[in-house]
Amino acid sequence: MSRKPQPGTSEDRIVHFLTRRYGRRAAGLTLGIGDDAAAIRPGGSDRLWVVTTDLLLEGVDFRRDWLTPAQLGHKSLAVNLSDLAAMGARPRFHTVALGLPVGLRRDWISSFYRGMTRLADACGTVLIGGDLSKSVQGIHVSITAIGESLRGKILRRSGGRAGDRLFVTGTLGLSAAGLGLLESGRRRGKSKSERMALKAHREPAPHCEAGRWLARSRLVSCMMDLSDGLSRDLPRLCKASRTGAEICASNLPVFPASAAWCCDPVALALHGGEDFELLFAVPEKNLRHFLRSYPTGFPPVAEIGRLTRNRAVRCRYSPGGPLETLPALGFDHFR
Amino acid sequence: MSRKPQPGTSEDRIVHFLTRRYGRRAAGLTLGIGDDAAAIRPGGSDRLWVVTTDLLLEGVDFRRDWLTPAQLGHKSLAVNLSDLAAMGARPRFHTVALGLPVGLRRDWISSFYRGMTRLADACGTVLIGGDLSKSVQGIHVSITAIGESLRGKILRRSGGRAGDRLFVTGTLGLSAAGLGLLESGRRRGKSKSERMALKAHREPAPHCEAGRWLARSRLVSCMMDLSDGLSRDLPRLCKASRTGAEICASNLPVFPASAAWCCDPVALALHGGEDFELLFAVPEKNLRHFLRSYPTGFPPVAEIGRLTRNRAVRCRYSPGGPLETLPALGFDHFR
Repeated sequence: MSRKPQPGTSEDRIVHFLTRRYGRRAAGLTLGIGDDAAAIRPGGSDRLWVVTTDLLLEGVDFRRDWLTPAQLGHKSLAVNLSDLAAMGARPRFHTVALGLPVGLRRDWISSFYRGMTRLADACGTVLIGGDLSKSVQGIHVSITAIGESLRGKILRRSGGRAGDRLFVTGTLGLSAAGLGLLESGRRRGKSKSERMALKAHREPAPHCEAGRWLARSRLVSCMMDLSDGLSRDLPRLCKASRTGAEICASNLPVFPASAAWCCDPVALALHGGEDFELLFAVPEKNLRHFLRSYPTGFPPVAEIGRLTRNRAVRCRYSPGGPLETLPALGFDHFR
Repeated sequence: MSRKPQPGTSEDRIVHFLTRRYGRRAAGLTLGIGDDAAAIRPGGSDRLWVVTTDLLLEGVDFRRDWLTPAQLGHKSLAVNLSDLAAMGARPRFHTVALGLPVGLRRDWISSFYRGMTRLADACGTVLIGGDLSKSVQGIHVSITAIGESLRGKILRRSGGRAGDRLFVTGTLGLSAAGLGLLESGRRRGKSKSERMALKAHREPAPHCEAGRWLARSRLVSCMMDLSDGLSRDLPRLCKASRTGAEICASNLPVFPASAAWCCDPVALALHGGEDFELLFAVPEKNLRHFLRSYPTGFPPVAEIGRLTRNRAVRCRYSPGGPLETLPALGFDHFR
């Protein structure tokens, strides 16, 4: 498993290269490569269709003995729905390409689809097709999810301005804490905290409703979801918005209970991947209205810092302490 | 490599099970699981969007030493565009999920995208996003292609009626003849025939223009593309149309030159996979008009038989000979 802090940005560099070389303008294409998802506008429609693809490979993104097939089905769809949530789009349809090693029991396939469909039904998306292939080694899951949004009501990574306040939903580092348990051989949680962490890692909840509310509120300037860790994702938001950021470690919504199994809750909140929480910015002038109107039933939000004119991404590790450059230690497939 | 004739229908059975269990009706969903692609109707639009996903895995669907990266990029997109062609949809957008083993050179990635983009530009589709992942073993390519069609102008597998004449485009068994060369160790063609066969296998040409013409002509009752071999795909067309079929081996547009490298041209035309030709039916009353109006610049078409009330799929191996049940020896991932 490689969801461990690793330096460098080579995945970003590949995406940058592809965007520069193969990014095309086209009629009906509202937003291309480089955001959480692409947005296309069907002719004659007042809606945007938002399209995202994610690949999960056994031995890299998951281990078969750490998840049930139903949990893998859930998680594979959840990571895609989180991308739609990050744009504020309503999930509508998805396709699934599955590469399966010979000898996998039909029970396995059935459970995988059962777990996926349970989440799909809860979020309102429908399986419309896919592909099945034999694989030489390991399970491969590639899902494409299609969401819908009213035109002008999607949130990109690029709308932020210096001075905007930075917020995240939920708790950071929870999934990484669950991964820590699995890596230490703990498959079943003994305490409520352990069970929470394992569940966050195995069955992350995409924040579709909150994402749509944030996009439609018109109070938010930019948004993305946290998949590779704050220290790797925040610089992406900043780069798209042409800003830097300052965050304060003491304001992060960490998961303190993970210290019980030798995790550093702040390090996991900064660098742990797969939280699938939303990271977004609120312009100062909208702040009071935002805090008053954000619905109470939604995942809690925490203000963690602000966007800055200075293009560096910096962190104050203790209140009153110095600002230090935040190293990008989150997850990168190609480092 | 396993694109070899194998008995049984277990891939079909898995798809049938998934369709029955997880097929859902939904607002805006015009055509779900089970055809070449799904069709969705964006609110307020007079267009249909046609969505298809295909997975290509190293060691199963291709061998790295049999294709250049550019050819793999071409082929991965071509198999998806062929599904759009089979519905009569115009290619518009595609996403690519790539799983890549560590150590693959950036040249490789660049060539892959170059080959893919050359075909994409020729067919009018634009790369809008995707995912990159490290893989433990082998290259994994999963592409989702999105096409557009005017409402009421897509062709399904299910519109055929007993009596309709069956046609195919192009030459059948050409790709399998190329695979035969590769399997015998011949990577470069020595004759024009060998080069044709290798090219058909490595860089199949999706019939997007012909597919659109056929769908818009209103002369065709049902259509699909041939990916797993006529003997496996024709029963799928028949099942969807609730008919059987009779074909005549002597009418198949075979590739006789493959006999020079010990292939049986008729067997390859019946059971060889990856031809990506179009298989379609024309009602008797439209026949003359169809034959007169089919554009000369398009791939040639050959009449190979007809749909029948009798639900069996049968073949006359010699003119005047008996009709025999056609065994489904085409490609199946799970047999």
